[in-house]
Amino acid sequence: MAIAEAATRKPLPFDAGHLDRLMDDAGIDVLVATSKHNVQYLLGGYRFFFFDTMDAIGTSRYLPALVYRKGKPEDAAYVGCGMETFEEELSRFWPHTLDLRYTGSIAAMQQALAHIKKLGNGIRRVGVESAFVPADAEAVLRQGLSNVDIVDAVVPLERLRARKTPEEIEYLREASERVVASMLATFKQCVPGKTKHELAETLRLEEVNRSLVFDYCLITAGTSLNRAPSEQRYAAGDIVSLDSGGNYKGYIGDLCRMGILGKPDAELEELLGFVEDVQQATRKLVRPGTRGGDIIALGERMVKESPHAKYSNYMAHGMGLVSHEAPRLMNIPRLSYTAYDADRPLESGMVISIETTMNHPKRGFVKLEDTVLVTADGYEALGDGGRGWNKAGQ
Amino acid sequence: MAIAEAATRKPLPFDAGHLDRLMDDAGIDVLVATSKHNVQYLLGGYRFFFFDTMDAIGTSRYLPALVYRKGKPEDAAYVGCGMETFEEELSRFWPHTLDLRYTGSIAAMQQALAHIKKLGNGIRRVGVESAFVPADAEAVLRQGLSNVDIVDAVVPLERLRARKTPEEIEYLREASERVVASMLATFKQCVPGKTKHELAETLRLEEVNRSLVFDYCLITAGTSLNRAPSEQRYAAGDIVSLDSGGNYKGYIGDLCRMGILGKPDAELEELLGFVEDVQQATRKLVRPGTRGGDIIALGERMVKESPHAKYSNYMAHGMGLVSHEAPRLMNIPRLSYTAYDADRPLESGMVISIETTMNHPKRGFVKLEDTVLVTADGYEALGDGGRGWNKAGQ
Repeated sequence: MAIAEAATRKPLPFDAGHLDRLMDDAGIDVLVATSKHNVQYLLGGYRFFFFDTMDAIGTSRYLPALVYRKGKPEDAAYVGCGMETFEEELSRFWPHTLDLRYTGSIAAMQQALAHIKKLGNGIRRVGVESAFVPADAEAVLRQGLSNVDIVDAVVPLERLRARKTPEEIEYLREASERVVASMLATFKQCVPGKTKHELAETLRLEEVNRSLVFDYCLITAGTSLNRAPSEQRYAAGDIVSLDSGGNYKGYIGDLCRMGILGKPDAELEELLGFVEDVQQATRKLVRPGTRGGDIIALGERMVKESPHAKYSNYMAHGMGLVSHEAPRLMNIPRLSYTAYDADRPLESGMVISIETTMNHPKRGFVKLEDTVLVTADGYEALGDGGRGWNKAGQ
Repeated sequence: MAIAEAATRKPLPFDAGHLDRLMDDAGIDVLVATSKHNVQYLLGGYRFFFFDTMDAIGTSRYLPALVYRKGKPEDAAYVGCGMETFEEELSRFWPHTLDLRYTGSIAAMQQALAHIKKLGNGIRRVGVESAFVPADAEAVLRQGLSNVDIVDAVVPLERLRARKTPEEIEYLREASERVVASMLATFKQCVPGKTKHELAETLRLEEVNRSLVFDYCLITAGTSLNRAPSEQRYAAGDIVSLDSGGNYKGYIGDLCRMGILGKPDAELEELLGFVEDVQQATRKLVRPGTRGGDIIALGERMVKESPHAKYSNYMAHGMGLVSHEAPRLMNIPRLSYTAYDADRPLESGMVISIETTMNHPKRGFVKLEDTVLVTADGYEALGDGGRGWNKAGQ
């Protein structure tokens, strides 16, 4: 319990020089990361198991906080909760200073603040994750630090995560392959009379039994464009879309595959064929040095010049610990972000999700979503099976 | 998409009169609920599936917001995200006003603010969930509402949820029974050589295959008091504790059961027997009208007067959508709450988790945790099987 000094120093699990440069560019002296994904990243994959999928406890919530002063990893502190002393015993933390006592957003930030105050003078700007620091915790920080600006650090943090390490790529590969394998197993269990609720639950079990954490399943049946699980029943001849996220050690596999309870007719073959053409043409641009926005431009042009323009759209976005992250290749107003990486070149180790979606007014929802890794000299698609019309039922 | 008026009015899924009285007591004119558990409660069990276990997307996060003006449910608004139009089509919402367009904490609160501004004059105090409203969203509210106090509404909201409906009790019963059934199945798979990581994963699969959402598993092996999953292997003769939360439709089953790879000796029988005595004696006090603090007093006295006082403790707390919620029966500083319900009488429909824990310096971790419902004239324990030393292995 209490404040402890780690007996031995562990190697830093991220590129501290890169983080320091990003903080320098943003004028940030001290970072206080409080989202599960950024704390996990900065702690080298550590995510406290007890609060993996929930937050609320007591009258407040779990709030992990990683305090990092630019250029001084030896001054870093991690604020967790009391049960994390079990993890401390297992030597899971690299920061020298650990504060593992209280659970609650205010208490967590009081500890983080106390640590910042010990860092001495010269702190002008503290970076936080504005969407992931609760109002009551941020008030503690703001009131405790006079003459210090509190600014958002989301962009530097996601730039830090944009190029994946070999280990992260392996996790994303496992996640993608297992999600697709789960989908193929689920199509086999889709028979007339089954509801969308039941089929989504089937996919959840298939993913969990492959050691994934299930995140969600968007699902359609027949000609309906409604993607929520419901009591709608599958019938012979229906098409099926499964668009699901499941994560492996926090890294998300997010793909979409199509099935059919019967045989596709010529029009369905043509529709999915067009989606596949856009997916294949745009992934071929993926390599180091490609301007990110060029992928979007090609995908959007192919859709626009096709007979399917009215009901189709193209999208691509970075992915990893978060389902839309850097590189940011296009403006997506409904997700509150803009294309601020569109003019930058792609770099090896980036991972991009590519989606071509058709809301066909007569035939239903037709989509493929793929995960494409930027390699040293091109691309590799992760979990790339099952791209045609998968036959539903045994 | 866009703002829609529900075609038909649905019945309110909660006791609006009760909420109005609680808001009146707290001087709150308008409530803005933004936690998943309170939004779920106020929307009658609805929880958007896509963000059930994750939050982050884009450079921000999903933030549902339910705006409720005291005494005027007809003026309520729900702010969700674009994909929730699928749920709107399925008539899942009771509020007349729905705003389902953007995902992001600032965008969500901008919509909630616009709705509050339409509610007219006389709004002096707005209640929020300070630990569940991100700083950037709260800033939108604060800057948009001049001459309005923004106060915390967590206590009124949890008082509203303290007495469970028959449907909620059914969900808690299902959750508890399935968690215990999962534990008994897991003990059977605990053989020498298995690691704690592997056994925790076994429990996860057992829970998910019983249609629960797995939340966490605290786990011990042998004489160790470390409760984190790890590479520690089970050996013949080891005792095993499984303390797990899994939820059914959001309602948490949280229980602890003991197993052993062999046969318990007399001392182990005595230790678990003492834990069982405390659990049974204190649950017998559970009935409408009992002063909540009396349960704690009895449990603490029994521990204190026993030979196990040094390494044992007693705890009881309300539970439901949150793993520690009203009634608040004792001070738990490490969870940042106090015993503000200790002097109140228990009421039928409340659900209490009761835990007696032994960190035995030589024999290891011994604990039982039970879920006890306050009935019309006494109590009922939910998921009450497997309370002795469960034999591990086949």
